[in-house]
Amino acid sequence: MRVQPPVRTWSPAYLRPVFYLIGGMLAVLAVAMLVPAAVDASAGHPDWQGFALSASVTLVCGLLLLGVARCDLSDGLTLRQAFMLTPMAWLVIALFSALPLYLSDHAALRGSVTDAVFEAMSGLTTTGATVITGLDQAPPGVLLWRSLLQWMGGIGIIAVAIAILPTLGVGGMQLFRTESSDRSEKVLPRVREIAAAIGAIYLGLTVACALAYWLAGMAPFDAVAHALSTVATGGYSTSDASLGHWRSAAVEWIAVVFMILGALPFVAYVGLARGNRRMLRNSQAVTFLLFIAAMSVLLAAWLALSGRYGIADAIRHAMFNVVSIVTTAGFVTVDYTLWGNMAVGIFFGLLFVGGCTGSTTGGIKIFRFEVMARVLRSYFLQLLYPRGVFPRTYGGKQLPDEVVASVVAFFTVYFLCYGGLTIALMAFDLDFLTSASAAVASLSNVGPGLGPAIGPHGNFASLPDAAKWLLCFAMLLGRLELFAVLVLFMPSFWRG
Amino acid sequence: MRVQPPVRTWSPAYLRPVFYLIGGMLAVLAVAMLVPAAVDASAGHPDWQGFALSASVTLVCGLLLLGVARCDLSDGLTLRQAFMLTPMAWLVIALFSALPLYLSDHAALRGSVTDAVFEAMSGLTTTGATVITGLDQAPPGVLLWRSLLQWMGGIGIIAVAIAILPTLGVGGMQLFRTESSDRSEKVLPRVREIAAAIGAIYLGLTVACALAYWLAGMAPFDAVAHALSTVATGGYSTSDASLGHWRSAAVEWIAVVFMILGALPFVAYVGLARGNRRMLRNSQAVTFLLFIAAMSVLLAAWLALSGRYGIADAIRHAMFNVVSIVTTAGFVTVDYTLWGNMAVGIFFGLLFVGGCTGSTTGGIKIFRFEVMARVLRSYFLQLLYPRGVFPRTYGGKQLPDEVVASVVAFFTVYFLCYGGLTIALMAFDLDFLTSASAAVASLSNVGPGLGPAIGPHGNFASLPDAAKWLLCFAMLLGRLELFAVLVLFMPSFWRG
Repeated sequence: MRVQPPVRTWSPAYLRPVFYLIGGMLAVLAVAMLVPAAVDASAGHPDWQGFALSASVTLVCGLLLLGVARCDLSDGLTLRQAFMLTPMAWLVIALFSALPLYLSDHAALRGSVTDAVFEAMSGLTTTGATVITGLDQAPPGVLLWRSLLQWMGGIGIIAVAIAILPTLGVGGMQLFRTESSDRSEKVLPRVREIAAAIGAIYLGLTVACALAYWLAGMAPFDAVAHALSTVATGGYSTSDASLGHWRSAAVEWIAVVFMILGALPFVAYVGLARGNRRMLRNSQAVTFLLFIAAMSVLLAAWLALSGRYGIADAIRHAMFNVVSIVTTAGFVTVDYTLWGNMAVGIFFGLLFVGGCTGSTTGGIKIFRFEVMARVLRSYFLQLLYPRGVFPRTYGGKQLPDEVVASVVAFFTVYFLCYGGLTIALMAFDLDFLTSASAAVASLSNVGPGLGPAIGPHGNFASLPDAAKWLLCFAMLLGRLELFAVLVLFMPSFWRG
Repeated sequence: MRVQPPVRTWSPAYLRPVFYLIGGMLAVLAVAMLVPAAVDASAGHPDWQGFALSASVTLVCGLLLLGVARCDLSDGLTLRQAFMLTPMAWLVIALFSALPLYLSDHAALRGSVTDAVFEAMSGLTTTGATVITGLDQAPPGVLLWRSLLQWMGGIGIIAVAIAILPTLGVGGMQLFRTESSDRSEKVLPRVREIAAAIGAIYLGLTVACALAYWLAGMAPFDAVAHALSTVATGGYSTSDASLGHWRSAAVEWIAVVFMILGALPFVAYVGLARGNRRMLRNSQAVTFLLFIAAMSVLLAAWLALSGRYGIADAIRHAMFNVVSIVTTAGFVTVDYTLWGNMAVGIFFGLLFVGGCTGSTTGGIKIFRFEVMARVLRSYFLQLLYPRGVFPRTYGGKQLPDEVVASVVAFFTVYFLCYGGLTIALMAFDLDFLTSASAAVASLSNVGPGLGPAIGPHGNFASLPDAAKWLLCFAMLLGRLELFAVLVLFMPSFWRG
């Protein structure tokens, strides 16, 4: 067994670039906290103090790290450093983000570290599962902070999915390496290069979404808060009834459009903006849209034929809920679990799917299903024609064995985590539907699960604390495509 | 794309060997029906007429097929013929086996084609899910026939798993091709060659099991009936309370031993009998035994520590139920769903596992988990050391890519079938736990599911007819390792 040693030897100074980058992120986070602080202050709500305090603490810690770990990043990161950076950054930022929630005066959060961390992690991973009841009465700072966390988490995961994961070779993402970036061990430079274009598009979509919500009749604050969590396919709302609170078909259709836009691959937008029309034939985007259309039509037909809704309502409810789950946003308008057990089964299945890679969505993601479909097809043909040769192609190119292996590993580990998580949740004596749906809804970063407790009209407040911590871990695991977290649990990662 | 045409061209006479073999099997089946006929007649129960009539019809059909499709089999079968033979034989035999059940006078069966076919299919696939209530009052012929079906199904699947599936290259079974049988297109000759040794061992185990049950206090009839369904890891009982009816620790331990013996690879017994001690290091057998031991110890510890049982009872209940589910027998002594939601979760997970290939068990089977574990291990190492080379070995030999691909395809299709089946069952408005557990319990040929309706103390009688047909299909699908059935649904199978 030939093992290549990592580029640099393992030394105490090895972690410096990782801490330095996290320090920078914390400084940015501290600035972001000033936004809800200002909003609370202008609304005369005492929560502004908590935000201000949190911003100070976060800034001090960030600057300390920047100072202590100061180093030259022009060489980029080694593979091992990149593997450490991603989960550590997410975790540290989630913990600091929880600070103002913990300090908030809102009744549902007061005094619970668990709830504050859960809410922050659910935000930053764009999951959208909430433990807060009484959102309609919550101070504006908390509401805006939750939405901002999702928005930052959304752009963060796009950056990671485009710049870091393909280079790490995680879960088949190497399929989305650009030609120029073959597996060099230098990860960082591309982050900055791509950030500007993607950031502009992300911001543009958010502004457009906020304007649309506002024109559809939302108050400006609600419009902004929902725009942030819609484009991020996060699902946090300013009302306990989620988007259902507005009882407006226009609001729902706007949400549908922007959830879909958030679920498409952002590099394709960059390509389109540069006039590259080949992006219109982006395989995963096309499959994703076809899948959503097919599921919506089927569900709408069933809703209309079974007499539950008129045709227009059936189409809207079907489309909204399919899109909300498949894009892993998790907004809610109606309680679809009341549509009968078949609907429960279908929505349970949809929890696994996810959108396109390089978007803000979670879940298994469309391209992995595409890869598996090609693997299965060639396998079946091989069964019949043992001596035949059946090449597997994707996007007009041969599918490398390495990608197939990664995708297979992803599916396997995904379902192992899902099964283990389900049983672990059942150990808290939660019922089967609650446990199984909480497991997949957090791994896929969807948000609401199924069943009376955590279903579309429930929330996660009633779960035991230990279950909430477990789900925090699951959200992080799912958000970082499993392997970017699991690698840290391998003994050989920490050796030599 | 180079496609090798099948050995012979597709012609009307192409099906002759398939029908000829099925004819032979029907003739054997007809003879087997005389056994319950004789038992019913000696007990003075009118059901003997149904068995006699069924035997006549089956014999006539069998002889007709033998006559009409008479042909020379010395050339063996082509790949395509073998693919057709396996599912068709199982289906036709199940239908004929259902005949005497349909004609029976027993109240729970009278007049329902669905129930008769379900019971026969569940028997022949060694699943053990039953739709009959009032087993304790059922005529002896029906009880013996159910057990006999499992026994014949058990030896049948061992023969198929050893002689046919490896050559078809289905689900990674090519790993168990013997050296002499590389992928020639001649399938049949080995069936006969191996049948004698395996058959003797199978019969010997059954006789030993029956004697043990009898010595432990069972009536001779019950001892024989349970021996047939224990060694076949089928799970049919002569009492509604299953083996729990006897309230005997001895009976339960005997069942544990013979369920395990039925779940080990039968070729290993043949090897051992010939003095080949290398068989003691059979990888899948060792893993299987370790897994059962570990799960039993964990469950027993939890049962004892939680104060539910004393230590001796905890060990016995844990061991019996783990073994019963993992070997896919499905006998029941206590209602483990009353042990709390964690137990439900654990037993749900165990429904997937299965025993060794080349045994009478269903499920995903241990060797596939072993292969996937090796795939995952090498994948994780590759993530960390992109330039390393990490060979995957199994049983001291390199794991061929072809086997890995087959195993991956198996897992994928298994979970696709499981998911599709679950949603389909929920469309009959069955609840989530019932649907999900019925799906896996039938795909894995275990028998009882979970939940109040079909759980350890329930049975499948209350399900709608359409759901029963669906489950019949699932049992067949799972029994024949998915691909041997699914290949027939490929358009290219039927082309030229």
